[in-house]
Amino acid sequence: MAPKSFIEVHPDSHFPIQNLPYGVFRPEPGSVPRPGVAIGDYVLDLSAIASSGLFDGPILKNSDCFSQPNLNKFLAMGRPAWKEARATLQRLLSSTEPALRDNGALRQKSLVPLDKAEMLLPVAIGDYTDFFSSMHHAKNCGTIFRGPQNAIPPNWFHLPIAYHGRASSIVMSGTDIVRPRGQGQPTGNSPPYFGPSLKLDFELEMAAFVGPGNELGKPIDVNEAADHIFGLVLMNDWSARDIQAWEYVPLGPFLGKSFGTTISPWIVTLDALEPFACDAPRQDPPPLPYLAEKISKNYDIALEVQIKPAGHKDSSVVTRSNFNNLYWTLTQQLAHHTINGCNLRPGDLLGTGTISGPEPEALGCLLELTWNGQKPLSLNGTPRTFLEDGDEVIFTGFCKGNGYKVGFGTCSGKVIPSHP
Amino acid sequence: MAPKSFIEVHPDSHFPIQNLPYGVFRPEPGSVPRPGVAIGDYVLDLSAIASSGLFDGPILKNSDCFSQPNLNKFLAMGRPAWKEARATLQRLLSSTEPALRDNGALRQKSLVPLDKAEMLLPVAIGDYTDFFSSMHHAKNCGTIFRGPQNAIPPNWFHLPIAYHGRASSIVMSGTDIVRPRGQGQPTGNSPPYFGPSLKLDFELEMAAFVGPGNELGKPIDVNEAADHIFGLVLMNDWSARDIQAWEYVPLGPFLGKSFGTTISPWIVTLDALEPFACDAPRQDPPPLPYLAEKISKNYDIALEVQIKPAGHKDSSVVTRSNFNNLYWTLTQQLAHHTINGCNLRPGDLLGTGTISGPEPEALGCLLELTWNGQKPLSLNGTPRTFLEDGDEVIFTGFCKGNGYKVGFGTCSGKVIPSHP
Repeated sequence: MAPKSFIEVHPDSHFPIQNLPYGVFRPEPGSVPRPGVAIGDYVLDLSAIASSGLFDGPILKNSDCFSQPNLNKFLAMGRPAWKEARATLQRLLSSTEPALRDNGALRQKSLVPLDKAEMLLPVAIGDYTDFFSSMHHAKNCGTIFRGPQNAIPPNWFHLPIAYHGRASSIVMSGTDIVRPRGQGQPTGNSPPYFGPSLKLDFELEMAAFVGPGNELGKPIDVNEAADHIFGLVLMNDWSARDIQAWEYVPLGPFLGKSFGTTISPWIVTLDALEPFACDAPRQDPPPLPYLAEKISKNYDIALEVQIKPAGHKDSSVVTRSNFNNLYWTLTQQLAHHTINGCNLRPGDLLGTGTISGPEPEALGCLLELTWNGQKPLSLNGTPRTFLEDGDEVIFTGFCKGNGYKVGFGTCSGKVIPSHP
Repeated sequence: MAPKSFIEVHPDSHFPIQNLPYGVFRPEPGSVPRPGVAIGDYVLDLSAIASSGLFDGPILKNSDCFSQPNLNKFLAMGRPAWKEARATLQRLLSSTEPALRDNGALRQKSLVPLDKAEMLLPVAIGDYTDFFSSMHHAKNCGTIFRGPQNAIPPNWFHLPIAYHGRASSIVMSGTDIVRPRGQGQPTGNSPPYFGPSLKLDFELEMAAFVGPGNELGKPIDVNEAADHIFGLVLMNDWSARDIQAWEYVPLGPFLGKSFGTTISPWIVTLDALEPFACDAPRQDPPPLPYLAEKISKNYDIALEVQIKPAGHKDSSVVTRSNFNNLYWTLTQQLAHHTINGCNLRPGDLLGTGTISGPEPEALGCLLELTWNGQKPLSLNGTPRTFLEDGDEVIFTGFCKGNGYKVGFGTCSGKVIPSHP
């Protein structure tokens, strides 16, 4: 049981002492980016804590991992360092520990109000991979794109399908998304459509940041894969369905996805999520031995998507799903990714794919929710098939503890018009 | 007409003064990586030249771009800097210029025998994209994977198809390639095959390094795209055909490719290739306006693939192709890549896709050469369908000038067995 913090944390806050998610921020415009953890309505500046000598455990004592402009070095250090940091921070922030609580100058220096902090990408992302691990999403998309006969391809139940995504266009929550231009399917003998995407969509995903990773040629065993996963963020894998539908045969999604991918600022660690672990679904057919894990875990993370059209005062909830809708686990994804010898590096990002559940209100994108635009949604009376300019899409997610939440904050982005 | 160098260069050398390709090397084991250009049998150490003050042009005079461990900073500076560096180096290396020629101490310090230099990846590659721009390759692979009816997908003639590749597993020529393990198509009701790939292949490609690139949301005009391409390397996009065939529907190639991609050490600049520019093929249907370029250029680069089986004294030539077999130009590839707003960063790598020509001996991979293993090749009497352990695959490529060659050296790698 985690202690109470001397910092007051509202029971609805996503950031109690049980969470302590990691991000990178500037305390004021122009200042140097630095790592922090969220606690209540504050960010604790880890560079300040480190330079005060308060990381006094054997691994972190002499490390400069918190004087970096990103978390890559800390991620590379692996679970022992992550556990040590968590223990130190939970102790420092607890109501019974005077070191920070009673040091006014250090509190002043190290605790920055969340609403003052400019959040940045927490990690320099080398490679970004996106999986396709919700069966409901695979089935729905397959039905829409290829018809009900071939909805789920025969490989789907044998391996966690994935593709390489674009790392350069991953952006921080709050960044506007320019509506992409591109080609769409021709009608009849006309040339293909060209112009702003007419079917802009969100995709409700989560994504894992890789820790130490592996050398080229040396796969990671599925039962050791959890030690290579630092934590999770919310992710919106914005998708232009018309561009995607025309381009994706035979080499997969490209420009339909690469114009922008938004992540939430706070990485919630697997250690903070552990109390919310639950059984992963039974897999039938049983996975091949390299994917058969001793403990197969999902996490009970409630997820919600809201859309706020331009000029609307309120947003509308369009999706309620849960991370535990995934068929393939994070550890299976990671083990599969390396089975061919592919090397993962600290800070690589692994997206889960769209997390759709079986219920109609649990579908993770507009393609599914509106059945490719055939059944408009109502946003407080305003019909919506795909996203319109000015729409803001807001994801949120949290685990419900006893009297507290371990949450992810929000992952948001507003669609702005294509450049002329 | 470029001057003659005071360094003797054999007419068959790939690295005369007309070339001056860029790489990154260590002059001796453990020394700091630094940029260099190849000249004859030497590497000229650009950090030594820069610290001697010999880059005296307005752009490079006060730049530290050649004191970096990679070329990213130089690539970001764009064509004016590249032109200035080339002019300075051609002058410094010419037989009529005493500054380096008559400075024994500087020559000693800055000219390193090629066979002593350890070549490293020249660039920190952020994102790697692989195109699919040879019509012959697209047609042959499509016929093999999907049958002659649907060989070339309908989108192929409208856009340069591409997918995101894996940046982490790009390796320098000379690096061994561990045979990947993975799943292959099941037969009947059996579970999928699992084990070392039984259909390991090479793919003859070239790849372009991106220069300045663009901001997210701001496409690059096709007529300005050449200013964003620094130069080219040879690339072997090793492919496990059995893994690829089973996994690639619907999201494209993943583990069938991500176990290793080999590039040659020397980046030959577009300025050095310019004398070998030739017309690109006429495109029918005409491309959409955003892909219609005023000048549509290919380059006449002769390409050759050899395989040297373990224990053989000699290698066998298995392919003779040419860069000018590409249907989509480098500039069209780059413009297409950014049309949706996707940002390219300095040092991103754009592969051309396998460069197959129309002739049977011009096919760029074993999949095509042996028609998916049905027609074995003979390597000096040894039959070969796909690559076997111990096979060394060697690419080479050059442009033929009048009494000189502008070449790429070699791009090689040896297949070693899967780890048990």
